[in-house]
Amino acid sequence: MNVKEKFGRRVRELRQGLGSSQEKFALQIDMDRTYLASIESGKRNVSLENINKIARGFNITLSELFKYVDTEDE
Amino acid sequence: MNVKEKFGRRVRELRQGLGSSQEKFALQIDMDRTYLASIESGKRNVSLENINKIARGFNITLSELFKYVDTEDE
Repeated sequence: MNVKEKFGRRVRELRQGLGSSQEKFALQIDMDRTYLASIESGKRNVSLENINKIARGFNITLSELFKYVDTEDE
Repeated sequence: MNVKEKFGRRVRELRQGLGSSQEKFALQIDMDRTYLASIESGKRNVSLENINKIARGFNITLSELFKYVDTEDE
C-alpha cells in the first residue's frame, strides 16, 4: 500500500469515526465531494494545504492525522 | 506563519540537525536543490509523495516530520 492509499484510508477512518458522510465532511471543509472521495480512495497526491484543511476539519494536528500513515512499504 | 512556512522551517531544522547541506540532502532524496530550497522557504504547496520522500530521507515517520507543524495560525 503506497502513501496515498494509506493516507486515504486514514482520512476515511477518521471521517467514519465522526459518523460523518463524505458529503457532509466535504461541505464542512469546503472541498468538492468527488475530490474527497478520490483522496479516500488513495488516488490523489494531496497537497499540504489540502492536508491541512482536512486536519482542521477533524480538529486534530497534522502529526495526529499522519498517525498510522508510516513511511514503509512504498 | 502559514502551514507551508511552518513545514519549510521544520524541514530546514531537521536537515541542519543532520549537518547536511541543501545540495547534499536534495541529492540524497533525488530532489532538485532549488525545489528543496523553495520548500524550506515556505513557498511550496508540497505534495504527499514529496513529503513522504523527505520523511524517508530523514528516516522518520510522517507523524514525526509534522511534529511542531501544527494547524494553528492560518
